[in-house]
This record gives sequence, C-alpha cells and structure tokens, in this order.
Amino acid sequence: MLAIGDELLSGRTKDRNIGHLADIMTAIGIDLKEVRIVPDEEDRIVEALNAIRGTYDYVFTSGGIGPTHDDITADAIAKAFGVPCEHDEKALKLLADNYAGRGIEFTESRKRMARMPRGSIHIDNPVSVAPGFVIGNVYVMAGVPSIFQAMLDNVVPTLRTGKKLMSRMVICPFGEGVIGAPLRAIQEAHPDTIIGSYPRYEEGKFSTELVVRGRDEEKLAAATAAVEQMVERLKAQAAA
Amino acid sequence: MLAIGDELLSGRTKDRNIGHLADIMTAIGIDLKEVRIVPDEEDRIVEALNAIRGTYDYVFTSGGIGPTHDDITADAIAKAFGVPCEHDEKALKLLADNYAGRGIEFTESRKRMARMPRGSIHIDNPVSVAPGFVIGNVYVMAGVPSIFQAMLDNVVPTLRTGKKLMSRMVICPFGEGVIGAPLRAIQEAHPDTIIGSYPRYEEGKFSTELVVRGRDEEKLAAATAAVEQMVERLKAQAAA
Repeated sequence: MLAIGDELLSGRTKDRNIGHLADIMTAIGIDLKEVRIVPDEEDRIVEALNAIRGTYDYVFTSGGIGPTHDDITADAIAKAFGVPCEHDEKALKLLADNYAGRGIEFTESRKRMARMPRGSIHIDNPVSVAPGFVIGNVYVMAGVPSIFQAMLDNVVPTLRTGKKLMSRMVICPFGEGVIGAPLRAIQEAHPDTIIGSYPRYEEGKFSTELVVRGRDEEKLAAATAAVEQMVERLKAQAAA
Repeated sequence: MLAIGDELLSGRTKDRNIGHLADIMTAIGIDLKEVRIVPDEEDRIVEALNAIRGTYDYVFTSGGIGPTHDDITADAIAKAFGVPCEHDEKALKLLADNYAGRGIEFTESRKRMARMPRGSIHIDNPVSVAPGFVIGNVYVMAGVPSIFQAMLDNVVPTLRTGKKLMSRMVICPFGEGVIGAPLRAIQEAHPDTIIGSYPRYEEGKFSTELVVRGRDEEKLAAATAAVEQMVERLKAQAAA
C-alpha cells in the first residue's frame, strides 16, 4: 500500500486507511507485505510506485485525488506508467450531472477530480461520486477514510484472493520473557503456521496475546492446541 | 521511519507510533519524509533499512526488539550494517540486576533483549528497562507505544533539530471544490509556506481545514492573512 499525503507525515492526520486495508486483506486471504507513506510530491510518488508495482500482485494507494493544487496523485501515477493524465469523459459527465442536480458550479477545481491516467478504469464512489481508478495492478483511492473504505468495498470482489488466512488467539498471563523459548519450539514444530506474540503492558504487569495463523484448518488446530498446552503447563508450574 | 511488525501488516495491531513520531518531528523541526512498514523478515528489514539510511539524516525504527523468536530486528540491523550482533555487556548487567531485584529468572529469551549490533549505544527505557539502541543514524526502539514514546523522549534532546515548523489553521465552511483555484493562487504567491487543505465530510456536508505551515513567522502571517481574506470573500459572495 502506498499512503500519500503530507498530512500523514506531519502528524496532522493520523492514518486509518492502512489498518483498515490490513484487516480487509487478512479477511480475504491476501498478504499485505509492505506499506509506504510518502509526501504529496510527484518524484516521491513515482519512485515509490515504480519500486513496488512490479514486485507485488496489487498496489493500493490512498490520498491525493481531490480537487486542490496539492492533489497530484493522478498525475504522478500517470507519470509512473508513462501515459498522459487527462480528464476522463465518463467521470466528467458523472460529476457534471451530480453538481447540476445539486445546483452547484462545476468549477475547474472540481473538474480535477475527473483527471486519470489514460487507460484507467473507474472505482465507484457511492459516498461522494468522484471515482477512484485502477490502472494495471494499481488501485488509486481517496484519503478520506469513509470514501477509501467504500471504494475498497467495490474493489474487493474483483481481486484474485487466496484461501482465507485463519487465526486463533490464546491469552497468556505471562510475559514474553517466560514463553519465548517454548513458543519458539512450537513455531519450529509447526512451520505452516505463523505464530506471533503481542505483549501487553498494563498497570505494571506484562501479559501476552498469542496469535496462531494458518491457511490449513488442521494444522492451525494442532499448533493452537500446542500453544494452549504450553500456557496450561506454565500456569501449573507457577501454581506449584 | 521503519515500522517493523507482521501484526501491523495483518491489521491485528493498529500502529500508533508513526503518528506519534510525526507529531514529535513536526514539533522539533525535523521533516519526516518517508515511512515504511515491513514484516518481521530479515531480508525485508535489511533491504528497507539500506534503501533509506543513506538518504535521510535520521532513521527511526519501531518493533521487534523483544525477547521472542519473531523479534529479529537487532539481528537484521546488524546485518544491514555488516557488523556482528551480540549480547551487550552493559545491557546484560542492567537486565540481570533488574530481574534479580524482582526475583524473576533471567531466561535465555529475556537475554535476547540485550542483543545489539556491535558499536551500538543504548537508548534508555524508563518503562521496562530493556534498552533500545542507536547505531550510525539509526534509532531502534520498541513497538509497544508507551515504551516507544519514552525511548523517543530520550532520543529527541540528542538530535540536530531545525528551526521549528509553525502552523496556523483556518476553518473554511466550503468544500475543496470551491476553494481549489483561489488557494492555489495563494500557494503560488507564498512559496515559503506549505499550504494544505484537509477535507471534512460529515453528515453530508463538505467543509475544509486549511493549514498554513512555515518556518518564517512573517511569511507565515502573510500567507495566513491571505487565506483568511479568501474565506471571508467567499462567505460574502455566498451571502450576497
């Protein structure tokens, strides 16, 4: 994912789209492998996009497709693909009709929202009309979270998804320092699962959430059972 | 910034460190120019680190310096720098004393938290003792937000900071479609400021927060005044 926006890097806006995309990808069985956050600067967007779009099956971007002068994503994506960026006829009509129906002027700024790299296909925007677009394997969506989420909902059914990644959680009252060694042994014994441990530090106490992920139901169950047995064993030792 | 962690990419954990670092950097006058989120995979960490550490003055990392098998950041950073990763004597003693004082076993897992690339300097951790470390221009800190923030507090006074970037905000009841053109004109007239517009979409209405940033107080004031006059002019036109 490429999250575009000066406001993300200044701290003015706290991103919510990355976490949302991560959740969705996990649910549909696509591995999110990298995220980059870059400024509203054409060179930086072009550089990042061209570094990643050949490496991954899909690239999702957020931000920079609004009507103001700092919304340069469409131009940058076009440059990265080496195609012209132009006003899309269908998008112009869609927006023109929408503004006419609301008695609002279709300003030059608003027309910017119809700019897309040549060859783009629309991503519908049921929230605020101005479409996102997909070109090649790059899905370009809004930065406003409600609009990003709505656009992504329209994208998801079109993706080639893998088998869903399932996960089980085991709560552990011990800190990672205690479980580290036995957990490593379990991970090594169950290589088709991804076992993570996530520390909690609350009110001076350490505890751990253990998450076991896998695509195969049986292997997942076996690894989870091993983890649960480990926790029980440690509890028994602590009580003894 | 390099945020390291499978849980960030799966969506299981919603990152808070990136936004915090962004706020702090803005406050002290350092421009955060790029963020990458990568998995707990050595190759990916090494690749990302070596791609960015020569480009920027500072790199801050979060995650992967705990005691479990998936905490591989120290080893990865060492590999990126081409130095050995070893148990740091001072860190071992610090941790040993801490566990002894609490009557807790200093397990092999816990000892992992003393592993650092050769040549590292400690970053103090007043929350949970196990230090972060800095090597070259790379500051390696914890993923748990309270610990990341405390470590960063200890790092900030040591950084070469620029003049503080100041900002002013102007609320605008109009959507970006209306203000786009006049705002662009203001930006062009005030090149030593960074003007951003951030749409709000609430209850079917568009409004905009306009932010004017700059390092020079006078130039900032001039640009802000221009933006305020623009908003007043638009309000007057809407009322007429």
